[in-house]
Amino acid sequence: MVIVMDADATSGDIAAAVDAVTATGGEAYVSRGTSRTLIAVGGDTAQVPPPELQALPGVADVVGVSAPYKLVSRESHSARTVVRVADATIGGGAPALIAGPCAVETPEQTLAAARMAATAGASLLRGGAYKPRTSPYAFQGLGEAGLKILADVRDATGLPIVTEVLDAADVDLVASYADMLQIGTRNMQNFALLRAVGQAGLPVLLKRGMNATIEEWLMAAEYIAQSGTLDIVLCERGIRTFEKATRNTLDISAVAVAQQLSHLPVIVDPSHSGGQRRLVLPLSRAALAVGADGVIVDVHPTPETALCDGPQALVEEDLAPLREMLETLPSALGRARPQPVAAEGATA
Amino acid sequence: MVIVMDADATSGDIAAAVDAVTATGGEAYVSRGTSRTLIAVGGDTAQVPPPELQALPGVADVVGVSAPYKLVSRESHSARTVVRVADATIGGGAPALIAGPCAVETPEQTLAAARMAATAGASLLRGGAYKPRTSPYAFQGLGEAGLKILADVRDATGLPIVTEVLDAADVDLVASYADMLQIGTRNMQNFALLRAVGQAGLPVLLKRGMNATIEEWLMAAEYIAQSGTLDIVLCERGIRTFEKATRNTLDISAVAVAQQLSHLPVIVDPSHSGGQRRLVLPLSRAALAVGADGVIVDVHPTPETALCDGPQALVEEDLAPLREMLETLPSALGRARPQPVAAEGATA
Amino acid sequence: MVIVMDADATSGDIAAAVDAVTATGGEAYVSRGTSRTLIAVGGDTAQVPPPELQALPGVADVVGVSAPYKLVSRESHSARTVVRVADATIGGGAPALIAGPCAVETPEQTLAAARMAATAGASLLRGGAYKPRTSPYAFQGLGEAGLKILADVRDATGLPIVTEVLDAADVDLVASYADMLQIGTRNMQNFALLRAVGQAGLPVLLKRGMNATIEEWLMAAEYIAQSGTLDIVLCERGIRTFEKATRNTLDISAVAVAQQLSHLPVIVDPSHSGGQRRLVLPLSRAALAVGADGVIVDVHPTPETALCDGPQALVEEDLAPLREMLETLPSALGRARPQPVAAEGATA
Amino acid sequence: MVIVMDADATSGDIAAAVDAVTATGGEAYVSRGTSRTLIAVGGDTAQVPPPELQALPGVADVVGVSAPYKLVSRESHSARTVVRVADATIGGGAPALIAGPCAVETPEQTLAAARMAATAGASLLRGGAYKPRTSPYAFQGLGEAGLKILADVRDATGLPIVTEVLDAADVDLVASYADMLQIGTRNMQNFALLRAVGQAGLPVLLKRGMNATIEEWLMAAEYIAQSGTLDIVLCERGIRTFEKATRNTLDISAVAVAQQLSHLPVIVDPSHSGGQRRLVLPLSRAALAVGADGVIVDVHPTPETALCDGPQALVEEDLAPLREMLETLPSALGRARPQPVAAEGATA
Repeated sequence: MVIVMDADATSGDIAAAVDAVTATGGEAYVSRGTSRTLIAVGGDTAQVPPPELQALPGVADVVGVSAPYKLVSRESHSARTVVRVADATIGGGAPALIAGPCAVETPEQTLAAARMAATAGASLLRGGAYKPRTSPYAFQGLGEAGLKILADVRDATGLPIVTEVLDAADVDLVASYADMLQIGTRNMQNFALLRAVGQAGLPVLLKRGMNATIEEWLMAAEYIAQSGTLDIVLCERGIRTFEKATRNTLDISAVAVAQQLSHLPVIVDPSHSGGQRRLVLPLSRAALAVGADGVIVDVHPTPETALCDGPQALVEEDLAPLREMLETLPSALGRARPQPVAAEGATA
Repeated sequence: MVIVMDADATSGDIAAAVDAVTATGGEAYVSRGTSRTLIAVGGDTAQVPPPELQALPGVADVVGVSAPYKLVSRESHSARTVVRVADATIGGGAPALIAGPCAVETPEQTLAAARMAATAGASLLRGGAYKPRTSPYAFQGLGEAGLKILADVRDATGLPIVTEVLDAADVDLVASYADMLQIGTRNMQNFALLRAVGQAGLPVLLKRGMNATIEEWLMAAEYIAQSGTLDIVLCERGIRTFEKATRNTLDISAVAVAQQLSHLPVIVDPSHSGGQRRLVLPLSRAALAVGADGVIVDVHPTPETALCDGPQALVEEDLAPLREMLETLPSALGRARPQPVAAEGATA
Repeated sequence: MVIVMDADATSGDIAAAVDAVTATGGEAYVSRGTSRTLIAVGGDTAQVPPPELQALPGVADVVGVSAPYKLVSRESHSARTVVRVADATIGGGAPALIAGPCAVETPEQTLAAARMAATAGASLLRGGAYKPRTSPYAFQGLGEAGLKILADVRDATGLPIVTEVLDAADVDLVASYADMLQIGTRNMQNFALLRAVGQAGLPVLLKRGMNATIEEWLMAAEYIAQSGTLDIVLCERGIRTFEKATRNTLDISAVAVAQQLSHLPVIVDPSHSGGQRRLVLPLSRAALAVGADGVIVDVHPTPETALCDGPQALVEEDLAPLREMLETLPSALGRARPQPVAAEGATA
Repeated sequence: MVIVMDADATSGDIAAAVDAVTATGGEAYVSRGTSRTLIAVGGDTAQVPPPELQALPGVADVVGVSAPYKLVSRESHSARTVVRVADATIGGGAPALIAGPCAVETPEQTLAAARMAATAGASLLRGGAYKPRTSPYAFQGLGEAGLKILADVRDATGLPIVTEVLDAADVDLVASYADMLQIGTRNMQNFALLRAVGQAGLPVLLKRGMNATIEEWLMAAEYIAQSGTLDIVLCERGIRTFEKATRNTLDISAVAVAQQLSHLPVIVDPSHSGGQRRLVLPLSRAALAVGADGVIVDVHPTPETALCDGPQALVEEDLAPLREMLETLPSALGRARPQPVAAEGATA
């Protein structure tokens, strides 16, 4: 059961609804989003009569949910969620572009990549300061120094930042710099981390585990939602299959399926799924065409010297075609055009 | 090594080129396509000096090919192949629509489905008279009676027919009715069947094996090409993975990869990959957006009574949106609009 | 519904049972095995009263079967089937060893490999005269010349022959030389071929498709059984997964699952699953330990010159350890020891 | 490059070797195991001349390692590692049995399961106090209260404890109760957690990620080793494939491959791979036969009421056959028999 609060419910209303649930022995999990707050009711819900909850001030609806992921299920919230990150939005009609370097390496490289992102029409900057690497001897990211570079580049370009966090112990530090927290594919079922980012008060970008079913992905989102944050963006980034011609197999159908099952926005990472620069534009077109709420791509000023995933990064000459695609394809698909953030100096 | 013949090379030219190869102990495999003829040279090719071959009448080029699939490799033929099936074409700028019932059940059902196909803008009719079924107790198709129904429906609608053949022994019979022969996913490595259809003188639709790598798929096409027919259309129809929310996992990237590696047209089957009617249109959009040369979809007048795969068939109300997508999306993607066959009586 | 005939039922009894089914509009599929004959009843079985069938002469039992694979289901035949191939048996307590070269190359190589097989304790000789190859330019096997070599080597060693058939059109020819017909992994759902081998009157070795579920594998066996032959041996040979350290992933659990679901013997091919000589003995031990009815392994006198799959072939020094394992492990597992065929001249 | 210290090297010797590496600008990672200490040399190793290192006191060998996992590679340590957990050992000739309940539920259930484990011949008790669950609404384990129960049961039975840790922040707490720390399949690439357990001073059981390649598994072990602990036991627990007849697909070949590539012991979890009680014994036999250093199995006094994974738990009547297998199979395989811990009161 999920209690849907009015868009203008007060914190007093929310507290009263929680009290009504807990007073009868139920459990209440408050999940706050840009557009509205939901409360998941757990435990022995037979004790909590829906009509009484419905009558409380600020309660818009009380919904029975059959899916095991209550808060993120479309059953609890049939309108599609729009996630706001600083001035940017993900979800709704216009597709969002998130772009940036795979890893933050230097201030110059990060600024150059951010300007590339803006040129392509991005409204958010991606970039990793903490990198999950298969080898303990590989470059692990710059850590807090990388976060500082990202913050400086945000000041210079106006682009809000999404960056990955790997460890629950780092969430507060990363959240003090970032505008949106990213959970990577290897951590999709790192439940301690999911809970920690859910409590951080920032929107979350949740990549699908490379071996995770769509249901497991939505359950991972539920962990975040249950911990407090409903502003979650799902990201399909390819699954692991027998086919080795691409780095992963982009599961394009998963976008449509996840949008049918959940009200959360769903974006696609064509860079990590294909693993090859020349696949990024075709896969981005496919993503927008299937209905994705955006794409997240790697860009790099000098991919041949990149410390991480150079072969999949877009370069200067790819930016105009990407921007053109973002400007023309949505209307052909009956969707709104993207609204890039007005970036001071970004494209100067 | 591949000998590329001029578009207007005579059969005498081709025979002379073959003789030049075999005279020095090489093996020559002639592969005829709508646009041109290629000859693969096998065996001890060190014996055959390229300059002498180059000088022969009707020889356009002699090309060294590093890919193991010589005839279908893009190295041998950088222009993309256009396959002609009766009046319809697959490949080139305009995406093709192939539509029809999964299985031929009755004359009425087949005609109704063919009219639905024409309404949606199809230029070819699909329909199975021989059905590969997991269970020996399931409906196995009408056999030759089904082929006769297809031929009658072709007469009534003007739509050329593509239909599956399961057994090398049936190839001549099926070829006497069909305009294009289909190899299904379970037979992609049925090499006797590949050779038989390659010798039948009709264009071939080759579905990817549900467990086949892209390279194995191209090698299967090479079996057909080596046996005589270069007019092959590749069809991505989903691969088998751990994800069970869809019937198969549509490998949308495979379209782009196959087009990079081969000159053959590549189409997508969104019906068998998704397995659900509501996924067919989104996946068709994704297919066109990634660059596919067409889509092949199931339609059925009464899916609830279909003997095979009813849940994935499009119904009447889906036809107009599909047609609109085919008419508007290509130009937004910089592609030509499809040219449906002028069908007498088809939409009357 | 399955009619189980007495072990000593006459052909008249079988014909009478078939008549009783068909007289009331049902369909009867007779499947003959070494130990007994089963009849699958299809169509509208409500018309055929089980008590009347039960009363017919030679009828041992009439069994309702819930599995979609009626004849090969353990529900129809709870005792485990023993398949007899000339003097050799597969199934029952003692594990069988089938060994030989991947491909028949020359008389000398085949005879040498057969003597290696006998030294290792094999009771059947494997060897391919028709080879399914990914590339049309690769060695495709010697064809009938290879079958003749196999027959000569059988005369010299006393080992009965199992060999693959690729095309329904070749079944009679191959059956005129072979003692057992093999269906390879790529043809597991080549239904025309399954039917043809089911009608050939020889026992069949059915390899699991590399992408096939266990249920699909049993349904493929049902095609063979329904066509006439109940003497089928299932062979697990590895499935295709993301892991590339081995050629395929041996699904060792499938042996136990298939034995729970079906009365047919199940053997393991450690050579094609692992793809490496050094894995063959450990995987063979695992196969016997999990309960497999035997193993089928590649041996070659000179693997470095093999035309096919040399790296996985056992060599001379592996034979004694393999033989010792076959002699000692079964008793530790509470199973009978294997009984190699008394082979004239085989180990001389 | 890896520096192999003498078995009796002093901490002064180790410090001197580290200094020699770091003095020339290299990086040194000390990894301590029961049998010996290794030091991985990273950074610019060209600066560190092996002969000078070789000459240092306490240095047994200096080895160039081509594998990316230096410390756990067999190249650095050709003898197989034996891991000691309290009085129990894993690795070496005798297979180890680890058994216990999937989750700690109550003191009574845990004690009963521990006595079942001892009856079966176990030398370690498994049991989860922190459970990684797909759903945030599912039972998440008893936490520290569960750890206390495990400690009490250890006192009562003498069996040392292996238990899972999910969060780097919990490592110290869990380590204060446990004898061995377990990393579960979902956390195999939770690098922060791997580093934390590597620093905890306890041996580690590292389950393979359900989607991880063998190389990625060894790289995860390298994270632990590089952080300080060389006493790591690898555990194959099934991978995710298309086959759904079993919970996961046990990759039995991975045991042999991992043992060829690494000196670490490798055990098998037949309970989580098969997911069915009746598969546990056959898969355990296969594990021992392929050469696994042990098995880890679920047991439960009343599986029908288990809060987690009841269907795969062994029950009372399975214990004697399991014990018998452990006592008889190793000698048939040329291995030593297991040595269960002398457990006070355990089987009384």
